[in-house]
Amino acid sequence: MTHRIAVIPGDGIGTEVMPEGLRALEAAAKRFGIDLELTHFDFACCDYYAKHGQMMPDDWFDQLKDFDAIFYGAVGWPDTVPDHVSLWGSLLQFRRQFDQYINLRPCKLLPGIKSPLADRQPGDIDFYVVRENTEGEYSSVGGKMFEGTEREVVIQETVMTRHGTDRVLKFAFDLAQSRPRKKLTSATKSNGIAITMPWWDERVVAMSGHYPEVSVDKFHIDILTANFVMHPDWFDVVVASNLFGDILSDLGPACTGTIGVAPSANINPEGSFPSLFEPVHGSAPDIAGKGIANPIGQIWSGAMMLEHLGHKEAADAIVTAFEAVLADADPAVLTPDVRGQGSTETLGRAIAERI
Amino acid sequence: MTHRIAVIPGDGIGTEVMPEGLRALEAAAKRFGIDLELTHFDFACCDYYAKHGQMMPDDWFDQLKDFDAIFYGAVGWPDTVPDHVSLWGSLLQFRRQFDQYINLRPCKLLPGIKSPLADRQPGDIDFYVVRENTEGEYSSVGGKMFEGTEREVVIQETVMTRHGTDRVLKFAFDLAQSRPRKKLTSATKSNGIAITMPWWDERVVAMSGHYPEVSVDKFHIDILTANFVMHPDWFDVVVASNLFGDILSDLGPACTGTIGVAPSANINPEGSFPSLFEPVHGSAPDIAGKGIANPIGQIWSGAMMLEHLGHKEAADAIVTAFEAVLADADPAVLTPDVRGQGSTETLGRAIAERI
Ligand SMILES: CC(C)[C@H](C(=O)O)[C@@H](O)C(=O)O
Ligand SMILES: CC(C)[C@H](C(=O)O)[C@@H](O)C(=O)O
Repeated sequence: MTHRIAVIPGDGIGTEVMPEGLRALEAAAKRFGIDLELTHFDFACCDYYAKHGQMMPDDWFDQLKDFDAIFYGAVGWPDTVPDHVSLWGSLLQFRRQFDQYINLRPCKLLPGIKSPLADRQPGDIDFYVVRENTEGEYSSVGGKMFEGTEREVVIQETVMTRHGTDRVLKFAFDLAQSRPRKKLTSATKSNGIAITMPWWDERVVAMSGHYPEVSVDKFHIDILTANFVMHPDWFDVVVASNLFGDILSDLGPACTGTIGVAPSANINPEGSFPSLFEPVHGSAPDIAGKGIANPIGQIWSGAMMLEHLGHKEAADAIVTAFEAVLADADPAVLTPDVRGQGSTETLGRAIAERI
Repeated sequence: MTHRIAVIPGDGIGTEVMPEGLRALEAAAKRFGIDLELTHFDFACCDYYAKHGQMMPDDWFDQLKDFDAIFYGAVGWPDTVPDHVSLWGSLLQFRRQFDQYINLRPCKLLPGIKSPLADRQPGDIDFYVVRENTEGEYSSVGGKMFEGTEREVVIQETVMTRHGTDRVLKFAFDLAQSRPRKKLTSATKSNGIAITMPWWDERVVAMSGHYPEVSVDKFHIDILTANFVMHPDWFDVVVASNLFGDILSDLGPACTGTIGVAPSANINPEGSFPSLFEPVHGSAPDIAGKGIANPIGQIWSGAMMLEHLGHKEAADAIVTAFEAVLADADPAVLTPDVRGQGSTETLGRAIAERI
């Protein structure tokens, strides 16, 4: 069985880390006998947009919809294309049009990566944030009244559906159920956001009835962010609405010091459309062109993609490989962000060799 | 000139820390010749509610409206009164009815208090979160459609007004202007929350025109929470909407390890109604009755109250006093949460003596 992968490196360091992401993927594919067919697309600010004045061709949906997955670098080049144009012209289109309603991000302390938190060791922090990725607070419904006057009123609606909420809860409960601790934490704010969030709490209770083995707790988002800092070891699977999940899935990797190397999966669990795998970091114009970007975010995203495609063993082999290279802490191999003098390529090659 | 203060100790540890808050206040009043007139109110779950079945008498507004300030402990006793009843029956009523549209919270590393962040010393972190406290995401506008069915849709509206936004921005810019670094950071999410937040950004730009000396930056809320953990030294004054401010003003004190001792001011800057000063911590039923609650949150809130009433020197004396007592680190004086064997009273008395 061949997996057809659309490869979109994007802009800036996206184009630098992608070759290393592919090197690791191909090493794992070879070792585990996985058949990958890669097709490259130049959809980016500095490439396609510069030539055509838009981020993608009009038929992008048809060109991409039959792939098994999209392997994505990072898009964005604010000097020439404003961020909201590049994001709503690609990444956010994929999430919505391909109904990638799960955003999944691991928060994990890694060997050799310094966490801003005191007294934490690898093994202490290892949890997932499951974010609703298509509705909720990210609606475009609303508007302005008395615009431009002293009486101006601006309204924006949060829209949650049972369909949209239950399916993300189900994914999160399934994930918790599959992990040794079997613990799910729900992010809420039902003491302040008085309509949607008490209803979210009810849906969590209803879903928990189907998962008697999963223990469930909930925190209001304010104290939950505080607990990410004070007690990150409490968490196993954290499920959250679009906005709360956006916050928690940056804060979690920040607590583990991994914001530069964390991966992110935008998943359509039914497989009716391709899922998308990308590093959390952006195109980083400030260090682009220097060949020093850390490729682990791209490589780890590749591992999540293989796991999604059914190759858990190959995914684990990639993670084990980069953890081992980080633990070795050879300065000639590591990139400057992790106290090395190496390059994107030296680190990528070392990881691929381990695999 | 006499300042008339309404004193509401509330429930649980609220009733234990309040006497120490008053002890410090009275010591400062004596030293600086300030005339305070205190009137006690028993509005609480375990007191007024138990007798009357509501949190406050019907004429609470008239009873309290002419005070110069409200000194508030902590309200809540979930065993007998659900939190939303006790909160919407007192604290949240005050914020709205007395138009306390500013919620102000200091985030400061203190001597002798362990921060969860590595390698940070007192002096490194010292900023304020200014939160809009009456509108925005905390509206009760919205509702449900197809309720109870698979097609269920739940809508909640965020409502921002120019009046409500500009006045909190003005307060924050004034505060930044008065501080040595003169730096203001705005919390936004204009790349995702597409109607209210781009408009918030425009109001920040408009207001900044009146404050040429204040340097302004902005971060999306996701990376802003990450930066609280990674770079807390970047911040001086952070201004945010009701929900984002709620999150940041718990996360900030969590990063400094001070969530148990941080104060909070709910301010009506024009003084048309009383402002309210309260510790960030709640009534803490789990440790209530033991006499071991740390009273610094209440004492620090008293300092903010004196500053609000025009007595900056007296406020500074209180802060200097509890910082000195913390730095002394005498285990016989300190409460267990800061590695002592003392009590609420030993710590409160030591601080009052210093003043
Ligand atoms: C209790 C709750 C409604 C309240 C809020 O969200 O405003 C609290 O978190 C606070 O910050 O004072
Ligand atoms: C760029 C932005 C719109 C996006 C989001 O908020 O979803 C990003 O923060 C993310 O988490 O992928």
